[in-house]
Amino acid sequence: MNDVVVIGVGMHNCGKHTEKSLKDLAQVAIWNALEETLLHPSQIQAAFVGNAMAGLITGQECVRGQTVLTSAGFQGIPIVNVENACATGATAFQQAWMNVYSGMYDVVLAVGVEKLYCGDTSKSLSALATASDIEIMGGLGVQFTALYAMNIKNYMEKHNVSIQDMARVVVKNSKNGSFNPYAQFKKPRTLQEVMSSRVIAEPVTLLMCSSIADGAAAAILCNKKIANQFTKKHLIKVETSVLRSAMPYSRSKGGPSIVEMTAKEAYEKSGIEPGEIDVVELHDAVAPGEVRIIEELGLCREGEGVDLLIAGETEISGQLPVNPSGGLVARGHPVGATGIAQIAELVWQLRGEAGQRQVGGANGTGPKVGLAENAGGRIESDSAACVVSILSKVG
Amino acid sequence: MNDVVVIGVGMHNCGKHTEKSLKDLAQVAIWNALEETLLHPSQIQAAFVGNAMAGLITGQECVRGQTVLTSAGFQGIPIVNVENACATGATAFQQAWMNVYSGMYDVVLAVGVEKLYCGDTSKSLSALATASDIEIMGGLGVQFTALYAMNIKNYMEKHNVSIQDMARVVVKNSKNGSFNPYAQFKKPRTLQEVMSSRVIAEPVTLLMCSSIADGAAAAILCNKKIANQFTKKHLIKVETSVLRSAMPYSRSKGGPSIVEMTAKEAYEKSGIEPGEIDVVELHDAVAPGEVRIIEELGLCREGEGVDLLIAGETEISGQLPVNPSGGLVARGHPVGATGIAQIAELVWQLRGEAGQRQVGGANGTGPKVGLAENAGGRIESDSAACVVSILSKVG
Repeated sequence: MNDVVVIGVGMHNCGKHTEKSLKDLAQVAIWNALEETLLHPSQIQAAFVGNAMAGLITGQECVRGQTVLTSAGFQGIPIVNVENACATGATAFQQAWMNVYSGMYDVVLAVGVEKLYCGDTSKSLSALATASDIEIMGGLGVQFTALYAMNIKNYMEKHNVSIQDMARVVVKNSKNGSFNPYAQFKKPRTLQEVMSSRVIAEPVTLLMCSSIADGAAAAILCNKKIANQFTKKHLIKVETSVLRSAMPYSRSKGGPSIVEMTAKEAYEKSGIEPGEIDVVELHDAVAPGEVRIIEELGLCREGEGVDLLIAGETEISGQLPVNPSGGLVARGHPVGATGIAQIAELVWQLRGEAGQRQVGGANGTGPKVGLAENAGGRIESDSAACVVSILSKVG
Repeated sequence: MNDVVVIGVGMHNCGKHTEKSLKDLAQVAIWNALEETLLHPSQIQAAFVGNAMAGLITGQECVRGQTVLTSAGFQGIPIVNVENACATGATAFQQAWMNVYSGMYDVVLAVGVEKLYCGDTSKSLSALATASDIEIMGGLGVQFTALYAMNIKNYMEKHNVSIQDMARVVVKNSKNGSFNPYAQFKKPRTLQEVMSSRVIAEPVTLLMCSSIADGAAAAILCNKKIANQFTKKHLIKVETSVLRSAMPYSRSKGGPSIVEMTAKEAYEKSGIEPGEIDVVELHDAVAPGEVRIIEELGLCREGEGVDLLIAGETEISGQLPVNPSGGLVARGHPVGATGIAQIAELVWQLRGEAGQRQVGGANGTGPKVGLAENAGGRIESDSAACVVSILSKVG
């Protein structure tokens, strides 16, 4: 197996881009990623393209990657269109990593792109609902935010914390997002604003929820042996990238969640301990849930996630910065792009290129190891897919 | 790299199955494939699930593989949902092969499933149209059958043959389909029936076109080193499986087509010569095109495809049997399943299990090497994706 490094990442900023097509969004991300490298596009040997909902939003199904990549000038390489609900982007990245890791290719592109604004919010929300088993969830009439709200309530009761405590995630992440040029929402929010915004599913309010978004992200992965030919930037190694899917019968019976199982496998495969993680990008689709995900990732003990938050340890200046990009709630959640946007943020953080939102790492010498968690969809009582990737600064 | 063998294949028959869900169809195929092996489902380590159009037909997007596999009892393994228009099934197979070949896993499942009958043919046809770049093709107002018809006309003019000559493909394939228990259409057709059926896009008539269909197919791939533990059947090796995508600027400038390029790469990678191929399953979406695809696959010289047809050489009893399953036009074309249905047919042929449609191979000792070609979608003047796989009987 080969060591794999990320040599280029790029984004199109998240937001409402009604005047732009999927192609327009993806091209900007791809070309930004290429510009971080010395590669000619013809040196890309394969591409994994993630998009979750164009079929239902723009009408483009089946060959989404081909339309996007031929319009960007690529031709003839294998293009695999992948889909895994909100974990679509990370799935494209995971597959791209695996193709280089296993020696199939030396240079592979991962692209995630989404357009959710279509002038009809109910259409966007209907499309998002297809991330669950529509036969089961449609029958129950329960939508995603309600499921998140139930989990948050459980956490509050179990650990005797208030929603005000948990809502501080939004204060932190919106502040981080204000430093991110790619963020959808750049306005820092106060706790009072978060708590007084419209209730979506008690105790979850509007400002706690990630919004629909348009955006794109791209990453170029390369065999480490030849990577220095193609970039002058610091190499960022992908220590591992693990995908797990649909384990509905575990959590409902009190067993580990899919996030716990995926993270455990990622630590085992990479040989990296949770204590070595310097910076985290995770799936705060409904932001207060962030505190529980930190625990599921093994980064603290159960019930301590909210303590770290209150103590400021998950801020950019803390011991364990979480979502310095602003996370889904502030940077934005263009579904198919989110998992690769997380990777882009980690790469910039590990290289020391994150500007005003740069985290310090242990001893202030810059972060050495980052972790990204991207979960998606719903099958029964747990996510339908989860990807955990661990990246490190080489040397 | 590891040698990869197929140890089990299964299908749900093609047809109109309005009373069955995607899950129902897929489960039958998966369990039929498992029954060919000694595997317990928990020994499957990863799955690639191909479906092209459920988002637009049944409304299930995003987590199609998860809904199908959890309902069949799988949980926790990586599931990757892939899509590549009519080459979706072969893409799932190609990715599954690559995962075993590269050493990532030892036992991987590839599933293809499609439901196109939905009580509204215009909805099915609209969904099929998304296999092209909708911005370009929608603008031109040209649909797939018209594009095939233009190619067929070009062939007729260039090689001075009649549509009656080329239409014999349907006579052959419908006869083959009459022997296939999984076929959608089991009625052998006469040349007169084919020629006198309704014109769809001159010179293409209704009976020359593959129909919409529901169906599913599955294949289980295994590292050859351990395969004998899991099956008592003859091992069928995957010599190679090559995917290429979207090369719109080649054919329009008189260069090689995507089928030619993909086949060439498959021969090079496998070390197998076109002359060694004993049986072929190929993408006869509009059946007269079969004669041209034989040429593009390098199985005869340009212009000779129609001669082989007329001489009866592509029949089951001929020197180069093509589409013994009945092909897309008779076995059926449940889009996401087709590429794996082709693999199932080759496996049965190579094992000598194809019953009344068994081909003899050179010297009548049974076929040793089979080739499958599955193409899909449209970008500019060529297919958006093509997979060529070469399988051989071990020993």
